[in-house]
Amino acid sequence: MLRLSNVLRSWVAKMPISAELRNDLEDCANRMRISAIEMTCASKSGHPTSSTSAAEVVSTLFFHEMKYDIANPKCPSADRFVLSKGHACPILYAAWEEAGLLSKDQVMSLRKINSDIEGHPTPRLNFIDVATGSLGQGLSCAAGMAYVGKYIDKASYRVYCLMGDGETAEGAVWEAAAFSSKYKLDNLVAIVDVNRLGQSQETALGHHVEIYQARFAAFGFEAIIVNGHDVEEIITAFERARNTKDKPTAIIAKTLKGMGIDGIADQENWHGKPVPADKVNAIKARLHGSQKGKLVAKKPAGDAPKVDLQIGSIKMAPPNYKKGDKVATRAAYGTALAKLGDANPRVIGLDGDTKNSTFSEKLLQKHPNQFIECYIAEQNLVGVAVGAQCRDRTIPFTSTFAAFFTRACDQIRMAAVSFANLKCAGSHVGVSIGEDGPSQMALEDLAMFRALPGSTVFYPTDGVSAERATELAANIKGIVFIRTGRPALPVLYANDEPFAVGKAKVLKQSPGDKIVLIGAGVTTYECMKAAEQLEKEGVNCCIIDPFTIKPLDQATIVEHANRVGGRILTVEDHYPAGGIGETVSAAVADHTNIRVRSLCVQNVPRSGPPDDLLDMFGISARHIVEAVKKY
Amino acid sequence: MLRLSNVLRSWVAKMPISAELRNDLEDCANRMRISAIEMTCASKSGHPTSSTSAAEVVSTLFFHEMKYDIANPKCPSADRFVLSKGHACPILYAAWEEAGLLSKDQVMSLRKINSDIEGHPTPRLNFIDVATGSLGQGLSCAAGMAYVGKYIDKASYRVYCLMGDGETAEGAVWEAAAFSSKYKLDNLVAIVDVNRLGQSQETALGHHVEIYQARFAAFGFEAIIVNGHDVEEIITAFERARNTKDKPTAIIAKTLKGMGIDGIADQENWHGKPVPADKVNAIKARLHGSQKGKLVAKKPAGDAPKVDLQIGSIKMAPPNYKKGDKVATRAAYGTALAKLGDANPRVIGLDGDTKNSTFSEKLLQKHPNQFIECYIAEQNLVGVAVGAQCRDRTIPFTSTFAAFFTRACDQIRMAAVSFANLKCAGSHVGVSIGEDGPSQMALEDLAMFRALPGSTVFYPTDGVSAERATELAANIKGIVFIRTGRPALPVLYANDEPFAVGKAKVLKQSPGDKIVLIGAGVTTYECMKAAEQLEKEGVNCCIIDPFTIKPLDQATIVEHANRVGGRILTVEDHYPAGGIGETVSAAVADHTNIRVRSLCVQNVPRSGPPDDLLDMFGISARHIVEAVKKY
Repeated sequence: MLRLSNVLRSWVAKMPISAELRNDLEDCANRMRISAIEMTCASKSGHPTSSTSAAEVVSTLFFHEMKYDIANPKCPSADRFVLSKGHACPILYAAWEEAGLLSKDQVMSLRKINSDIEGHPTPRLNFIDVATGSLGQGLSCAAGMAYVGKYIDKASYRVYCLMGDGETAEGAVWEAAAFSSKYKLDNLVAIVDVNRLGQSQETALGHHVEIYQARFAAFGFEAIIVNGHDVEEIITAFERARNTKDKPTAIIAKTLKGMGIDGIADQENWHGKPVPADKVNAIKARLHGSQKGKLVAKKPAGDAPKVDLQIGSIKMAPPNYKKGDKVATRAAYGTALAKLGDANPRVIGLDGDTKNSTFSEKLLQKHPNQFIECYIAEQNLVGVAVGAQCRDRTIPFTSTFAAFFTRACDQIRMAAVSFANLKCAGSHVGVSIGEDGPSQMALEDLAMFRALPGSTVFYPTDGVSAERATELAANIKGIVFIRTGRPALPVLYANDEPFAVGKAKVLKQSPGDKIVLIGAGVTTYECMKAAEQLEKEGVNCCIIDPFTIKPLDQATIVEHANRVGGRILTVEDHYPAGGIGETVSAAVADHTNIRVRSLCVQNVPRSGPPDDLLDMFGISARHIVEAVKKY
Repeated sequence: MLRLSNVLRSWVAKMPISAELRNDLEDCANRMRISAIEMTCASKSGHPTSSTSAAEVVSTLFFHEMKYDIANPKCPSADRFVLSKGHACPILYAAWEEAGLLSKDQVMSLRKINSDIEGHPTPRLNFIDVATGSLGQGLSCAAGMAYVGKYIDKASYRVYCLMGDGETAEGAVWEAAAFSSKYKLDNLVAIVDVNRLGQSQETALGHHVEIYQARFAAFGFEAIIVNGHDVEEIITAFERARNTKDKPTAIIAKTLKGMGIDGIADQENWHGKPVPADKVNAIKARLHGSQKGKLVAKKPAGDAPKVDLQIGSIKMAPPNYKKGDKVATRAAYGTALAKLGDANPRVIGLDGDTKNSTFSEKLLQKHPNQFIECYIAEQNLVGVAVGAQCRDRTIPFTSTFAAFFTRACDQIRMAAVSFANLKCAGSHVGVSIGEDGPSQMALEDLAMFRALPGSTVFYPTDGVSAERATELAANIKGIVFIRTGRPALPVLYANDEPFAVGKAKVLKQSPGDKIVLIGAGVTTYECMKAAEQLEKEGVNCCIIDPFTIKPLDQATIVEHANRVGGRILTVEDHYPAGGIGETVSAAVADHTNIRVRSLCVQNVPRSGPPDDLLDMFGISARHIVEAVKKY
């Protein structure tokens, strides 16, 4: 009953192991089963059945295959484990309990508000690199770690990613798979726990492990089917993975959901529910008598290099423009990125086949070893970057059209839950891209990136500020978005102009100002044109360039709004929600004497010349002049 | 030189065609090449090389394979064509020019601001069902159309989706592929234009057509490799697709980017650029002399049923609760969805293996033929729905955890560009879901859905309003988001309470009110608890339940804010950006006498009991009381 050998046929020519080792690993798996059941009974919620299907895979991984150090789980040379099926975290907590890192009391605090033993894993725990729980994201992160291990650290550590079968329906898994084989990540092992049952019904493929195998094989993996409850088969598969060169390995583990829990294994309607506490008795009765602590993990090889990342002190050569030079902020970003690459070999760039548009190719050209082409797969682009920044191994700058970062919105959301040090530079924002039309125009990106807790959002207007935004981004720990534009527009600032997060620039002011105009990027220039015209008509305007949209320089805005009689007009190449108008409105909402009106893009745009579109969609100088006169 | 037979080996046992037909189709392809070159020269931008690689595929499709009616491109029985590689639209416009739907002048207006012949296709044109241009989305939409054709319309029309090779790196393609084979969509043909070159470099797989074939085969397709410039091979493959039962077909067309353009074909650095105008001369010289208009498309079979969708008049049985009953809004949504399913057989539900949590399973239980299980693949979930709503064939309600709609953010963005009639019901919002932790909590969904141009955002507080929101959603044409919660909370409204889009409810008011509290969902109840306590201390509060967050009932808010002395406090289970606080701040930003303060979730939450989390993250009654006292 314990093993499934009787119901699942064996696919692997097994490497014989001693009866003792088998007993030890099986007992370990069963002790973890018991712990998973006990902790979810205590929390009255959680996923014991999704945990127990993976018990033998996890016992074998943690106590026979992986090299790590419980005194230093984030040791740079230690093998990595990503639990992509994050809801099965009770088995992961149980593994670290077995290893001696967590106490019984700790694992029994599962899901309590004062405990970091959360319902899905987060890096609040020192043995977690990336938060999981939104399914199908783990393999990209694991691939990012494996890429860094093989090509940047050039170290021997290996990366293991345990996925559920249901989550392989997520396209992100196949983006990661294509990436992993393209880059020959033979230090990466994906394990699919094919327990047949999803949350609400059987998965699309049920127990057809041969289809999983065919899919991973077609995506360039060594794909091995095992009985996921037979430790000997699992050990054999890991051994084969270690001996496979130039391709990643996928282990397709046929399992039963709820395996080991009498009357519940392989039954529907047991997802995400505690099982009766007395189910542990039968499992206890099946123990061979091996003791916890007998199996000890191998130590890491210690061959990962020390990294001198020095976050906070990465300095680049200053910008080198003349005022009035026409420079697109996307081009200035690329220039700065290449200079940051000079400054530190751990600054890396990733792009999704847009590098000649985002100008991240400038880094590639100068430092090819610091650039990862991720092809047209933005979810994986972000996921790989999140993996690459783990353990502070690199500072990853991801670049694509800002509109296409929406493709990775969930990955970016989870990056925030992971407290990741991720940089996103999105180009081609707003209607000012012109003829390519609305599918390519980012008009909701400020809303998306502002929403992330702890994020910093740069929206530089000219080449100098775009370079400084990029430099500052490298020196902030956390998620940073840099919004860059397509058009080449005049440089406004001197090369030695100092820029800081949360500090706006007052581009124009005079004692007689009647209104504050707040633009950013292309609309700053429209504000300047409008102000020039209004000045001729006797209406002086103050112009503020916020530089960072988050944090917003509330003090400067309030100061000047008060000075001009409380009138603010914001102008942005973005939809209303979550953009400049709303953040400014919220920033002054508690001030009764300050009013805000906003010009922004209100409808789905279309193809056309940039200037004509600015005018058609209500954010050109003409509209600003009109709005100021009507204020 | 014209055909690639000399460089590309033939994989298909060809069905012989007459020399005349071959000449006609080749001439058609070449006339379209010429047109694509001419229109992109005129617009000085666009993608001629991505167009010409597909010329023979498109000529064969439009003038030999597909059934349609140029007098009525949206005819319910006509075959559908989705150009997933939207940047290649010059070849599509050229095809409709060949067919006689577009004039030369029209196609030559490509990318001009007054023309609907846009840089990427949008449904402003009557022959476009879905906007494309964000790559990798077309196959999901096509699969949605094919699903409706096979299972709902039960008609013979077929669906063709032309993809680029680069875009198959997008995971969404594989979500759609898995869906299409799971549901045996033998009326669907995916064609991959394997022209080897992406935007910035060679694709990951280059001309390895056998890898594309293996991947599609592993995902359950009949996968056929053809020389994509040999019309005979293409015809043969379409014929085989028509004779393939119970599985979709993928035609892997090996092509050259820029095929037919001397000196440019198969060369890098020609993506998204016009080519020299005189390149058309050599193509003209290769014409056999067939005339435009000789090849006429077959007419549709006319076997699609007439649909009585009656948007605007779908009425459901009224809610049936007692005030005080504890009902989760997600459960009320499911109840209403099932009743809408009673009202109209074209109301359909789609879910991503969360139907027992979102309660969309209530529709499945009552009307299994009106429900599509999409498994854990939210991009495809939304894409299929967008396809299903085309030509007003159905009203699709998609359901998943609100947090997981972020996975489909780009698909939803493109749905707005498609002017799609899409309903999204997102459950499990905010910290009030409790122990599952931050990965499962939607805290940026209001920002995401508010950002969409033309969207409507419902945030019902109780069971009655949740049912009415669902009913109203079915009767609005456009993108609708319904934000539902996990906790079961008391019913507040009578079953016959009328609800309308943009009309808030004033839950509590008295002449002596000192402040307006605005909550929604779970925070409405916190506002009520706080108001009760404050009332005991002599501070009366007005409570507004906005019902729709977009459009927001500005008039009611301003009216009551003015009445209470200008103090508003918003309370929301959402991050600050793009949420209730910001939309209310923006709505009153032009009123100097009204102030807004906001309570919302500011940091990454954690696992814990819902009430404890509301308190820990600053949005409980206790915090409201404190904020009111400090105001």
